[in-house]
This record gives sequence, structure tokens and C-alpha cells, in this order.
Amino acid sequence: MEIGVIGGSRCSTEIAELAEEVGREIGKRGAVLICGGLGGVMEFASKGAKEVGGLTVGILPGTSKEEANGYIDISIVTGMGHSRNVVIAHSSDSMIAISGEHGTLSEIAIGLKLKKTVIGLRTWEIEGVIQAKTAAEAVEKAIKTLEGGDV
Amino acid sequence: MEIGVIGGSRCSTEIAELAEEVGREIGKRGAVLICGGLGGVMEFASKGAKEVGGLTVGILPGTSKEEANGYIDISIVTGMGHSRNVVIAHSSDSMIAISGEHGTLSEIAIGLKLKKTVIGLRTWEIEGVIQAKTAAEAVEKAIKTLEGGDV
Amino acid sequence: MEIGVIGGSRCSTEIAELAEEVGREIGKRGAVLICGGLGGVMEFASKGAKEVGGLTVGILPGTSKEEANGYIDISIVTGMGHSRNVVIAHSSDSMIAISGEHGTLSEIAIGLKLKKTVIGLRTWEIEGVIQAKTAAEAVEKAIKTLEGGDV
Amino acid sequence: MEIGVIGGSRCSTEIAELAEEVGREIGKRGAVLICGGLGGVMEFASKGAKEVGGLTVGILPGTSKEEANGYIDISIVTGMGHSRNVVIAHSSDSMIAISGEHGTLSEIAIGLKLKKTVIGLRTWEIEGVIQAKTAAEAVEKAIKTLEGGDV
Repeated sequence: MEIGVIGGSRCSTEIAELAEEVGREIGKRGAVLICGGLGGVMEFASKGAKEVGGLTVGILPGTSKEEANGYIDISIVTGMGHSRNVVIAHSSDSMIAISGEHGTLSEIAIGLKLKKTVIGLRTWEIEGVIQAKTAAEAVEKAIKTLEGGDV
Repeated sequence: MEIGVIGGSRCSTEIAELAEEVGREIGKRGAVLICGGLGGVMEFASKGAKEVGGLTVGILPGTSKEEANGYIDISIVTGMGHSRNVVIAHSSDSMIAISGEHGTLSEIAIGLKLKKTVIGLRTWEIEGVIQAKTAAEAVEKAIKTLEGGDV
Repeated sequence: MEIGVIGGSRCSTEIAELAEEVGREIGKRGAVLICGGLGGVMEFASKGAKEVGGLTVGILPGTSKEEANGYIDISIVTGMGHSRNVVIAHSSDSMIAISGEHGTLSEIAIGLKLKKTVIGLRTWEIEGVIQAKTAAEAVEKAIKTLEGGDV
Repeated sequence: MEIGVIGGSRCSTEIAELAEEVGREIGKRGAVLICGGLGGVMEFASKGAKEVGGLTVGILPGTSKEEANGYIDISIVTGMGHSRNVVIAHSSDSMIAISGEHGTLSEIAIGLKLKKTVIGLRTWEIEGVIQAKTAAEAVEKAIKTLEGGDV
């Protein structure tokens, strides 16, 4: 099971803590964490997953794995800039959006277009996004939907 | 000058007429119309541009130019599905979004991420999109912003 | 009809002249010239096409149309680096490879993989490439194959 | 360390055995095996890696992870067809080409263009490819080059 975590490459301390907790929840449940591999929400979520022994995949926009944050196990180097957002959406079984700006909105939209479950945590309120209040609730919903459960 | 027109591959008669008028306005002003090359808003906008002798470019998601609508002069066959939305945004100097669903939202978001001017016509109300009421107003704003004017 | 011209972004004077002649032959026959939009073979072929009033499309690797050479009419800005080579191959009805190194070889290979006719002018000798001796012969073969002729 | 294995989606029994051995050698050395995730050389190499407990990544061309062969641990779903070859080359620290046709040639060429070490096993003889005679020799050379050794 692969859970995508999307959000900005810069974020507040509060959002960083939330992202880290999301990462821990994903790792604890044995799911693979997929993200864009850079800083901010991506880095803190990856950090959280690694704290509990999870596996992390970073789908990078540039041409070098050097740009990956320090908590990425597998770097996918796309060399295709923002088009890598589409790869993240395709590769995720469900997605959790945390805060974020227009880049995150594009990933939410592509996720919904691809009929993926997209869970939102303090992010864009777009029709189709299932809002959650806590990291645990977000991850639970992201996983439950894959098991055919009602969220 | 290249103006991107984005919107759904299916649309109502009313939206079709609006798209056709947007295409005519773009063609009349000598701008190149860039779109996703398929049906719906893309087809009617292309039709409008051709009615007034404009030039149309379709950036297609699939692997064959056969999928282009009948009003496309230049087919760019990307073979990369939804990632072609990013190519549309990069290739457009400014963009006009007409109605549309999640695919259109992803293009709006990428356009804004790339700091392009995005004009909206009966579409998603997202911070950063400049709303217009008529086709002529939308095209005027899309072009004026490229000439350094205040919109 | 769209003819792709592929080759290095730097080239000798002799190859430049050959590319320019290929461009002129393509333009004279009313075909659209597709290329990677940068310098060297791409620039000289585009120059040749423009000398005779042809239409040129540059499928660029970077994120700005500023990188296009001065003879490109329509810039497609992909932002996806070498992946744009695949877009060139998909968008070309047939391709002419002129000299070139590994980048050109990748385009030749993708063209052959996609079952496109690939004509070679002083380039890689790969099984499947139809070698030509002159610019006129190359363009004639590239077009003849599209009309169902035997080359 | 990520080693890319490239080759056709169909292959002879002899090539299948060679690919499987390459996969085992990669897995035994603790390197991650990156491939295109489909059948043939990709499947047998992945099988070999899993036999010895290695980790396998499949960078898929289509839009569903269902197309991955049964030995892929991490599926990257690109939805971008042949452009995924560029992602494989970028994501591999070095590459081993086994037999193969034009698709494989395109990956070899992109690998060389990106200055990656490309080892060849009964494949295209292209300037720049380092030929090897056995699976063990190929993997040893692919790894040695990353450690700064002379191959």
C-alpha cells in the first residue's frame, strides 16, 4: 500500500509537526510513504516515517538525487519538473494533502481526476477532498478507503 | 503571443458558445491558441479561432494525432497523459479557464504555480484567478497582462 | 505533414549547411518542421525552413521559450528535459537525423520503436534507419514514405 | 546504490537466465534494482533480485500498478509511456543493458547522454557502452564505477 503525502516545500512549525505525525502514522501501519522528496511537508513526513522504520520514496522534479531530503530511501529522479506531480498521484493508492499552495492544489486536482481518495489536513477546500482533523484520522481514512471501507 | 484555453472535454451548449467566442477573440487579435486538442471546450475554442483565420495548437495526451479535434493546425503528440497539462501551462503566455472540472483545476493550479496570468470564465474560484464575465473581457485581460498592463 | 529534424545542439559548418538545406527542402514542400528548438542542427534546419516561408515548431526541454532559437514560430515549452525527445518522435510523421551524438541516438531509437520512418544523414548507422546521401534525397524519402511510397 | 537493468519485455530462455543472474548479483550486493517493471528481461532480473532478498523498483509506462510483474516491490506509475525510459536513466546510478531492441537502445543512449556508466550484455554495440561477458562481471563493473574504480 502506497500513501502519497503532498504539501509545500516550506511550512510553519505547526504544519511540520503535523506532517511528521502523518509520516509516523503511515510508517506504523506498514504503508510506503510516497512524496515529492524535497523539503517542508515532504521532509517532515519522511522523517516521521523513518522514525518508526517505514519506507519512503521521493519522486523528485530535478535531475539529481542530491536534491532529496535526508529521509528518502528510494529516490526517483524524473528530470521533468512539475510533471512529476502527476507521477506522485498515479503512484499513490490514496493521498493526504497537508496545507500547501498552488503546487499542492495541482496534485489534489490530479488525484481527484484520477479518482484517488484525497484526504485534506488544513489544506484547500475543494469538492471531493475528504477533510480530516488529525494526522491519525487522515491516515486511517486514507487506508480505510483502500480496504473498501466507507470514509 | 500564445494564449492557452483550458476546460473540459465535454460541455453544455452555453459553455460551447462561450468557448467558441473566446477562440474567435484570440484569433482576431493574432494570438496563437494553445489547448489540449480534444473535444468540448478545447474543440469549440479551436473552432472559433479557425473561423477568423487563427492558428491553433493541440497538446494531446495520447500517442496519436488522430485524437485531435478537427480544428487543430499543429498537433503535439505527447504520449504522457495528464502530464501534458503541465506542457500546456508552460507553453501559454497566459491562460483562460472556461468552466471545467478537476482536470481544468489542475491546469489552473499549475498555471498559477508558474506565475502565469490565469483568467476565469464560469470556472473554479481560486485565489489568484482573475474572473471575467465575457469572452471579450477574458481575452482582453489575458493579452493586456502580457503587454504589461494592469488587469 | 510534420517532419522531425533531429541532431546535435552544436555542429560543424558542413553539417550546419546540410541542416539548412534539409530545412529548406521541408519548407518548400509545405511540411511543418518539428525540432528540439535549440541551436546547432535544430537552428540551421529551422533557418532553412524560414528562408522559404515554412512553419517551424520547437519542442523545448526547459521552462522558458527564451531558449528557442530565432527561427522557431511555435515554441512548445515542456519543462521535462530529455523526455521532450519522446514528444518530438510522437509528433513527427517521419524523422530525419543529421549527424548527432547520444541525444540524437535516443531520438532515432524512440522513432524506430514508434515505427516511424527515420532517415539518416551522416548519422548513426542503426538497423532500421534509411540512409540518404543528400538533403533533397532525405526529405523526399521522409515524405514519400508518408504517402505510402516505397523508399 | 541503484542499478538500472534494461532490456526487452520479451526474451529468449537464455537471456531470461542471464537477466535473472544479473538480478541475483545486484540483490546480493545490497543494491536496489531499478527497471521498467514489465515482463521479459525486467521480470527475470526482478525475480533474481527477490530470490536473494533484494529490493526492486519498477518504473511503469502505463497508468496502473497492475501492469507490474510479480517481483516488483515499489511500483512507480508514470502514465507517460516511453518517457519513463528517461526516468529510469536518471534514477539509476549505473545501468546494465541486456539484449533488447530499439526501446533498450533508447535507454542506453539516454544513459550515455546523462554520463551514466552503461554496461552491455549481448546488447547493442554502441560507443561508450562497456561490454561484459557474464552477469557477475556486468554487476561488478556497474558497482565498481560508482565507487570510483577503473572499469
